[in-house]
This record gives sequence, C-alpha cells and structure tokens, in this order.
Amino acid sequence: MRAGLDVGGTKTDAVAVGPAGEIVGRVRLATGWGADAVVRTVLDAVAALAAEPGLRGDVITSLGVGIPGQVAPGGTRVLHAVNLGVEELDLAAAIEPELGGVRVRVENDVKAAALGTYALRGRDGSMAYLNLGTGVAAGFVFDGALWRGARGTAGEIGHLSVDPGGPVCRCGQHGCIEALAGGAAIAARWGRPGALPVRDVFDAADAGDPRARRLRDGLAHGVAAAVRVLVLAADVEAVVLGGGLTALGDRLVDDVRRELRGSAAASSFLRSLRLDERVEPLPTGSPAAALGAALVGASFDPEEALAHG
Amino acid sequence: MRAGLDVGGTKTDAVAVGPAGEIVGRVRLATGWGADAVVRTVLDAVAALAAEPGLRGDVITSLGVGIPGQVAPGGTRVLHAVNLGVEELDLAAAIEPELGGVRVRVENDVKAAALGTYALRGRDGSMAYLNLGTGVAAGFVFDGALWRGARGTAGEIGHLSVDPGGPVCRCGQHGCIEALAGGAAIAARWGRPGALPVRDVFDAADAGDPRARRLRDGLAHGVAAAVRVLVLAADVEAVVLGGGLTALGDRLVDDVRRELRGSAAASSFLRSLRLDERVEPLPTGSPAAALGAALVGASFDPEEALAHG
Repeated sequence: MRAGLDVGGTKTDAVAVGPAGEIVGRVRLATGWGADAVVRTVLDAVAALAAEPGLRGDVITSLGVGIPGQVAPGGTRVLHAVNLGVEELDLAAAIEPELGGVRVRVENDVKAAALGTYALRGRDGSMAYLNLGTGVAAGFVFDGALWRGARGTAGEIGHLSVDPGGPVCRCGQHGCIEALAGGAAIAARWGRPGALPVRDVFDAADAGDPRARRLRDGLAHGVAAAVRVLVLAADVEAVVLGGGLTALGDRLVDDVRRELRGSAAASSFLRSLRLDERVEPLPTGSPAAALGAALVGASFDPEEALAHG
Repeated sequence: MRAGLDVGGTKTDAVAVGPAGEIVGRVRLATGWGADAVVRTVLDAVAALAAEPGLRGDVITSLGVGIPGQVAPGGTRVLHAVNLGVEELDLAAAIEPELGGVRVRVENDVKAAALGTYALRGRDGSMAYLNLGTGVAAGFVFDGALWRGARGTAGEIGHLSVDPGGPVCRCGQHGCIEALAGGAAIAARWGRPGALPVRDVFDAADAGDPRARRLRDGLAHGVAAAVRVLVLAADVEAVVLGGGLTALGDRLVDDVRRELRGSAAASSFLRSLRLDERVEPLPTGSPAAALGAALVGASFDPEEALAHG
C-alpha cells in the first residue's frame, strides 16, 4: 500500500492507494499545531489508515505528504508552513525511523493536488490546478508530470498584479490576483467574523449590499485573470478550480464563467480560446491532494536520489 | 549540413549548422511578399547558403523554417502570416520537391528563436524568450525542449491585461501587455512616421516630451509585466529579450530593469525573485531564430511522424 496525506491547516486527509492507482482506504483527522504536533498527526494518520478494515496487515511501501509550505530541493524538508505553525521541519527525518525506514517524500500541497487531479481526470492532456484558498496559487501537470520550474515556484501566480488601481496586497503590490481572489484578503476587507466569510460576502451581495457586490465581482475578476494567465502563458487544456473557496460551488464557478464570457465578448482573441469551457471545479471532498501526495511518494526512486546526492 | 531560416517581414536570415550544432555559414536576403514570393525566398536562401565558400558540395540533410505565423499541427503548414502576406501555405509541400525530397519543417518564429537562444546560451536550465516586435509573445524551453502547450499557443502572453484602465488593444481588451509594449501599438499611438518609431519615442522622451515619456514608461511597464508573468507562472531561470525593439539596446533593457527594481522595492515577494537579474538581451544580429529553425528541422523524425499520422 502506498500512503498519501494532505496536511491542511485544520484537517488532514489520508488515502491508501492500491497497485492500479485506485484509492483503497481513506481517513480524516484534525491537524495539530506546530512541528511536533504535525509529526504526530502524520503518524496518527498512517496508523489510522493501517487499521482500516481491508487494509489490516498491508505493508506501507511509501508515504507522500502534501503540505501547505515551501518544499526544499530533495523533497524531505518543508519551510514556512505558516498555517501549520511550522517554520522548518525535516518531515522525512522525523517520520522514516518511526515507520521502519519506509521512504517519505514531501510535496507542496497545491502541486500534490495538481498531480492527484490529473490522475482523477484520467491522465489526459495538460492541466493547471488553481487553488483558491487563503491564498491563490496553481500547479501544472504537463505530459503527465508535475512542472515545478527552475526553483520550484512555478504556478505562484497569486502575486501578479492585474490592476494597478486595485486593493493593496499583503505582498506590497496593488491589484494582485490574490488581493482580489484570496480568501484571507477578502475576509480582511469584509471585516466581519464567520466560518467562511466569503460565503457571507456572496449572501450579502445577493441581498444587494454594494460593498459585498464589489468584493464578489473582484473575486470573479481575480479568478478569471488567473485562468487567462494559466491558459495564455502555458496553454493548458483545462483549469481545475480547487481549495476552500470552491465550497461555494456553482455560485463561484458561474461568476467566473460569466466574467470569462464577458471578456470574450469584447475580444475575438479571447473568444477563440474558449476559456469558460476550460474551467471546471474539483468536486467538494475530492481526495486529489492526498492521492497526488501518494503518487509523489511512490514515484520517488531512492537509487536516483543517491546518484544526485 | 542542416539548414535553418528565419523568414522575417523584411529580411530572411539563413544559417547552415554543422554536426556539433555550430554555425558554419550564414546569408541574409530580402523577403518577398505573398505565398509564391515567400517560397521563392526560401529556395533562394538555401541556394545562397549552398554557394557559400566552404559549403559548396555539402548536401543539405534537413531544412527548418521559422515564420511569423501560426503553424498547424504536423509542422508543415503556416496560417495567418499577415506580415508576409500569407494566409495559408503548405511550405513543406512547396519546397520539398524542389530540394530533392529533403524534409522541411516549419516552426513559429518566436518558438524557433527560443530554441536557438537556448542553444546559444549553452543549453542550461529553463528559459523564456520574450519577443518584442510588432507584437509581444514568448517561447519557453523547459529541460531542453520547446514547450508548445496543448494547442500550440503557449507563450501568447501579449493579450494578458495588466491594467483595466490602460489603452485599448487591437484585440478588444484594455491594458494588454501588447497594447503597452508592442511596437505597432506604440507606433500607432505616437502617430508620426519613421523607420523605428519607438526610437523616436525614446529620443523625444529624453528631450522631455510628456506624451513620449508616457509611452516609454508604458513600454517598460508592459515588458516588466511580461517578465513577471513568465517567471511567476513558469518559474524560468532567465528571460531573454529579443525582437525588433531590442535594437534600442541598453536604453530599453535599463528601463525594464529599473521598472522591475521599482516593483521589487515595494514587495518583498518580488524582491526574493530577483527579476531584474533574470532579464538579459539577445545580442543584436543574433542568429538565434535561424539556428532554432535548423534545430527544429534536424530533430524531426520521419518515422515518428508516420506513427502519429
């Protein structure tokens, strides 16, 4: 059994993957805060998987962990996972001895979700996964493989400015895609508490609140801009939307498609790209990120790692 | 000898490439207007290469042609090469019988220049070539191979809007990168005749003309936005600037680097990417596009083409 984990800010999703890439078991549990608690969460998740009916007695052959942070070259160490309270952690070094030497590999959670989404969609063509969560970032799968870029930051399009007159971004620029479409930026500007502030924004916009309408329009504008960047720059066949904001379902996706159709109406060039047809939501509760992490863990070849130091 | 041609709007650059990828001959001639004249230009260029001292008697084994238009799948047919007066032309069908069956492959000129630039830079890392000519478009080389995308349009970033309040683009949108940084768009807004209107704009800006200054600032803003898109989306190690506008040399490159440093001063995220250091100009008169075309022609495997129809 190949195990894959998606360690999120509040919960951890764990899957066991069979020989043909099929998901043979799945558990979810709360994520702990800080490096030690994250290590504990990973071990608990693996133990919970191994205790699943039908998996008892199966040996874990590899473990991949998707994590919301920067992953250092080599794929064992995570940096700046601020939503987990982790500044730096060598997850492989902490976990491998506890699992009897099973190899552990770490991947950025958005990249893991991109790879898992690609597998769930039938491994066809080139694709971008656009994560709409606290922040905004994308992952690319080209010809079946993750495209990480020269320094591992491919897909970090959240901090592209698409409007010099737009809201200030936490990064210091104005009108970044993330300042318009990031959950944290929208919540900060909305300024009212709530479990999913962006849902409140949508409800208030439906009720006619002009400030909520502007925020909601800005979200659609930001996501549409991200879709244009992904398709015009990388010519991906599909842009799959995932992340916390997609809990809004069709309300969000319809807004984005409407915005893309609006810009296509003004531009024959954009019209020819059929951007609205390339956008699709990841189903809520999809195990894409955990599955992608399992694939990253399983694809790692220890002999190659030795050869490359 | 492997031959490569860059068929431009006014002149055609032709190179002969030796076994180790080195350029062993080069000729330049005027490009004809319209499909028949373009075919004639290609044949004349090949004949002129073969007549070069040191190349006489060498057999041409392959021919690649870079052309400013859309290349249909299969790499033999060019569409919408408006600057050559060509709406549609099967260049391979027209040329191959005249060259005794030597295989001919066509590539978009920007993608050919990207591949040639990569070869001239020592085949290292991942790279984008950003063409600043009549329009604005880029080509990517990842791990030594051209990245064409799902439909062959990867790198068409000229029509990304980076300012909803910016000038109207010929594509119908506002504030496209090409509306700010394309030679044709700048010339149209400048509205005065000249061989290289953008040079007049730079001179007038130096002399204090406020309208010229705005155009010049817009050019730097548009190119800097393109560099950000290429690096944030695809995480390329280097962005090489080429195309007609780079005849402005350091005046253009310094403006672009200054703009990138200005945005980095406002954003620690951008600062961490060191964008100004990733930008470099292609030397004026570089044979990159013709060399890249030669590499495309030489790399074509006829058996694989048969297998894929």
